[in-house]
Amino acid sequence: MSDLSPTLDLAIDLMSRPSITPEDAGCQDVMIERLKNIGFEVELMPFGEVKNFYAKRGHSGPNLCFAGHTDVVPTGPESEWTVPPFSPEIIDGILYGRGAADMKGSLAAMVTAVEAFVAEHPDHDGQISFLITSDEEGPFVDGTTRVVDALMARNEKVDWCIVGEPSSTKTLGDIIKNGRRGSFSGDLTVYGKQGHVAYPHLAQNPIHLAAPALDEMANAHWDNGNDFFPPTSFQISNIHAGTGATNVVPGQLNAQFNFRFSSELDFDALKVRVIEILEKHNLRYDIEWTYNGLPFLTRPGELVDAIVDAIQDTVDITPELSTSGGTSDGRFIAKMGTQVVELGPINATIHQVNEHVDAESLNQLSSIYTRILKNLFANNQ
Amino acid sequence: MSDLSPTLDLAIDLMSRPSITPEDAGCQDVMIERLKNIGFEVELMPFGEVKNFYAKRGHSGPNLCFAGHTDVVPTGPESEWTVPPFSPEIIDGILYGRGAADMKGSLAAMVTAVEAFVAEHPDHDGQISFLITSDEEGPFVDGTTRVVDALMARNEKVDWCIVGEPSSTKTLGDIIKNGRRGSFSGDLTVYGKQGHVAYPHLAQNPIHLAAPALDEMANAHWDNGNDFFPPTSFQISNIHAGTGATNVVPGQLNAQFNFRFSSELDFDALKVRVIEILEKHNLRYDIEWTYNGLPFLTRPGELVDAIVDAIQDTVDITPELSTSGGTSDGRFIAKMGTQVVELGPINATIHQVNEHVDAESLNQLSSIYTRILKNLFANNQ
Ligand SMILES: [Zn+2]
Ligand SMILES: [Zn+2]
Repeated sequence: MSDLSPTLDLAIDLMSRPSITPEDAGCQDVMIERLKNIGFEVELMPFGEVKNFYAKRGHSGPNLCFAGHTDVVPTGPESEWTVPPFSPEIIDGILYGRGAADMKGSLAAMVTAVEAFVAEHPDHDGQISFLITSDEEGPFVDGTTRVVDALMARNEKVDWCIVGEPSSTKTLGDIIKNGRRGSFSGDLTVYGKQGHVAYPHLAQNPIHLAAPALDEMANAHWDNGNDFFPPTSFQISNIHAGTGATNVVPGQLNAQFNFRFSSELDFDALKVRVIEILEKHNLRYDIEWTYNGLPFLTRPGELVDAIVDAIQDTVDITPELSTSGGTSDGRFIAKMGTQVVELGPINATIHQVNEHVDAESLNQLSSIYTRILKNLFANNQ
Repeated sequence: MSDLSPTLDLAIDLMSRPSITPEDAGCQDVMIERLKNIGFEVELMPFGEVKNFYAKRGHSGPNLCFAGHTDVVPTGPESEWTVPPFSPEIIDGILYGRGAADMKGSLAAMVTAVEAFVAEHPDHDGQISFLITSDEEGPFVDGTTRVVDALMARNEKVDWCIVGEPSSTKTLGDIIKNGRRGSFSGDLTVYGKQGHVAYPHLAQNPIHLAAPALDEMANAHWDNGNDFFPPTSFQISNIHAGTGATNVVPGQLNAQFNFRFSSELDFDALKVRVIEILEKHNLRYDIEWTYNGLPFLTRPGELVDAIVDAIQDTVDITPELSTSGGTSDGRFIAKMGTQVVELGPINATIHQVNEHVDAESLNQLSSIYTRILKNLFANNQ
């Protein structure tokens, strides 16, 4: 028998399994076992090499889904870790190990939160579900997005979703993410005509041709954002042209760029603006677009209220709502019309060596999740 | 005994020697032997692995120097040649082989021209010299530039120089080069701050920072050129930034650029202008400069007149004076205050497979060179 809380016990169990994306390494079996024990119906939904499951308890009323991933990013150099990355340990109250914050700690907190709630409210209102994948850190092709497609195909309704991604920055619950910006990428080739620098009239320099267009895009004002989103941002991540020789005018230039965009814009609006700029500068070009995800937004309402109240009640702070930062599987779940909020531990060390989290914060996170369930589903029976 | 002219005989002899830069393969020995026979004093001036010689006939009066190189560029795929590149052959009046145009044909024409002139004018006015290197097509470090340094160190005066580079474009003598633009290069690094595209406020994108400065340089008006030079041109030959990842803002950008500049400008003037632009755009940057060569110009005068007259007289066309195109060893010789003109065969096939030249044009070139000598040095004795 361990002296640790059920949440830390389960977190350490999950973290001991080296589930480097897209591996699950038995994590989902552990979760499934626990959920079955408290009356969940579990559906395995593997796609390709990726393990996923959907589990539900209850048959009517609003569906609150806990979503997350059992896969983790690679460890980096193991010698730089305080503990071996898959041998988690609590040292001076800090839990070290890969996945502590992103997001096996959250998974453990979800399971123990639901166990505690169900023990007290076996006949709760509504439906509680889990949507768990092992392909969030990888290519996210056979994970949440395919489970969502399957759920939509059979008209499964998910009203609310809490994603366990580490949303907190300084202290547990200081930030919850009630949306994410969209992400949209372009791979641009600008054509010129190769030649010798001594005969510039016989060549067309694609670097010279592209420079004013790239400058215009880099400095464009795409939108003002809105109450929930910062203004759309544009970044050129890569640019390459040239044969290496210093006396040759290259024949083409390649540039890759990415938009993080607000709910004021969509793929088509951005595409039109980019093409307008390229055409205005009379470029000969090809462009390949990648649609990474539309923005989603959960406006303040029943779910956000229940979460804000639970955080205030448990850790006595009022969370800030934010839509900044990178993408998560929340974007796929939002496609179902679901209200999605991300709430998890402090993200300061995720994807780094020596990933860690305050151990007690996972117990608090479990309490917050339980409290959310109470706020939404406790009945008066 | 060959049926060919002395010029073609000598050209074929030189072209049979596989003197891929910086090799000389015995070419200079052949030339030296011929020049000694007609009273030249020959000085071997090897530097490093490079063979060079300076030879002179006469002891007073203006010095007219014939300059050239015995090295050639590599052959490219031999299978694409009509004849093996170092087994020159005349087929239907066309002389094929590496060096036919650049510039063993010219070397042969120079030697036979001087032989013919000296036979007729053994007591000519002035001094006739040869400055021959085997390092023009290579790094040009131990070739003409070092011979010139040595000549300057002992106050050798070279008043006029004819470089045998293939200056003609459509027909022999249609163009002579009475100067060359300067060449000046920069290797620019612009510093930003690496980061994640989702958090642009924490990063500084060096592509975005550099774009307006590069655009300004690409579109800058550097000068108007002058009667002898086209306007100065600027070309960015290489640009690179990015980690390859599409979600990372890179930390720095590298760009290489080259000026071909007129005699209206010099290194310092260009440097000041570039730095002004970089500073105006508040860039953090490093820049490494490479000084390739100042422009040189031979204004119309005694030498140009003698050459124009010789061409008109021999092939009945009036050459155009030009300063366009790439660099040559003429720039080093011009450092001595020498008037330098390039006059040689048609350059259409130089540095290509199947390099060739009209055989008869080499005989004509020899006649032109002889005629120039007569115009400048024939006395009435
Ligand atoms: Zn995560
Ligand atoms: Zn040459």
